[in-house]
Amino acid sequence: MTETTFSDMRRLSGAQARALIRRGAYSRHTAGLASGYLQANLVILPEDYALDFMRFCQRNPKPCPLVGVSDTGNPFFETLGEDIDARFDVPSYNVYRDGELIEQRAEISELWEDRQVAFALGCSFTFEAALIAHGIPVWHVSHDRTVPMFRSSLPLTSAGPFGGSMVVSMRSIAESKLDDVIRISRHFPLAHGAPVHLGDPDAIGIEDIARPDWGDPAPVEPGHVTSFWACGVTPQAVVRSAGIPLVITHTPGHMLITDVPEDAEVPVITPQHLHS
Amino acid sequence: MTETTFSDMRRLSGAQARALIRRGAYSRHTAGLASGYLQANLVILPEDYALDFMRFCQRNPKPCPLVGVSDTGNPFFETLGEDIDARFDVPSYNVYRDGELIEQRAEISELWEDRQVAFALGCSFTFEAALIAHGIPVWHVSHDRTVPMFRSSLPLTSAGPFGGSMVVSMRSIAESKLDDVIRISRHFPLAHGAPVHLGDPDAIGIEDIARPDWGDPAPVEPGHVTSFWACGVTPQAVVRSAGIPLVITHTPGHMLITDVPEDAEVPVITPQHLHS
Repeated sequence: MTETTFSDMRRLSGAQARALIRRGAYSRHTAGLASGYLQANLVILPEDYALDFMRFCQRNPKPCPLVGVSDTGNPFFETLGEDIDARFDVPSYNVYRDGELIEQRAEISELWEDRQVAFALGCSFTFEAALIAHGIPVWHVSHDRTVPMFRSSLPLTSAGPFGGSMVVSMRSIAESKLDDVIRISRHFPLAHGAPVHLGDPDAIGIEDIARPDWGDPAPVEPGHVTSFWACGVTPQAVVRSAGIPLVITHTPGHMLITDVPEDAEVPVITPQHLHS
Repeated sequence: MTETTFSDMRRLSGAQARALIRRGAYSRHTAGLASGYLQANLVILPEDYALDFMRFCQRNPKPCPLVGVSDTGNPFFETLGEDIDARFDVPSYNVYRDGELIEQRAEISELWEDRQVAFALGCSFTFEAALIAHGIPVWHVSHDRTVPMFRSSLPLTSAGPFGGSMVVSMRSIAESKLDDVIRISRHFPLAHGAPVHLGDPDAIGIEDIARPDWGDPAPVEPGHVTSFWACGVTPQAVVRSAGIPLVITHTPGHMLITDVPEDAEVPVITPQHLHS
């Protein structure tokens, strides 16, 4: 089977991109893919932890904007589109046992259990597409890299065993464009919204901006502001200390592509949510 | 104790209005009160139903935009402000046993149990304030009435025992202002967003627009469009058939007033959610 190229993938619909990913024909990051469709971070947990995790998402809506949740034991995200299967439809999965990342895999059908619940959290790709549409370049997209992500010292609001500090993503933004970038990204509350910190990385506990904890390094150009957004990888940092036997997530940058249009009012595919 | 008047209440902060309500000095509807602060619908359920109820809210974000959730057994909404107690801080409560409304009360301290969870859902008062600020009058606010609310035939997306059809609120909107009203209300996803239906009430199962199921009747003026929004009273219709022994809600129109500013990016009072 030949690997499908990035430029082929950009113009596909959400369903077409998912079909390629499901059959193993694409396994890289999904930034810029299936342009116009909402992408999501994935978290799969045992049901015993699901209520506290939903509380955690509600209390930390910037890193964890909940856009979908499955029924217990049902791997399909029925409100995010047609035939979206949490076991197969992400290009790469991270598997955490007792808080430790033990492997990365292409699919997780053998690990799916009937007491698990799957969660989809909104993703910064949505506002990045809006920035690019407004003529504001995003370095890691232009250079086909994964956005740099860092553990920060920004505190989270706890719920049950979930708490700790926020993971942030970094983009270098021209000072002259900063107001526009804040205004545009704030319009996407389900895609992390406005930045959580601007300027000095050290002020939020980041020692070396050239060494991200996830993703690829990206330069901060002269005349640019180091800008940080809340990141949907936050649950992967949080579950390290939550004492959960098995947690499955996407591999950072390798998202679930949905059928929901990026400009939809709500992330739910049902006709009654459209006004007439 | 003398009843505080409506005009006194308009200028209070959220905390000041809540203090009067808690000590029984104000028991009427809260439209227009504590101007600038987010108000919320209230639902209190046994923990056994909480995960499905949160799924139900996530899948029906227009009627049920979740803005707060308590820890199990803790009546305080800690992310919505200082000292917000779900047992005392609403002007009037509805008590449902086995799906039937059995009483209305001023406080519910005797009914609070250590396995209950309290939920706060966003409320249309937020976008009404924005409409009025844009010079678009809202009849029931000008006339100090409660908005008319109706059971509709618009289907909801089910979760566990929760499902059925949507409750909607009605506002009469001048045809010339309709585009503005849609645009403005859409900017408030945590306050029901854009309308769910415009025009013929019969098309969404409403037989008599002069006889609301909750609230007061309101006229539809000539040159106006009968406009319907998803309503936070929806859970009160849904729990009738969900088979839950005890559900406590606010009395429609009698909301929980929070400390969250109406224009806050997220409905969470914690400094880390503000960008620097």
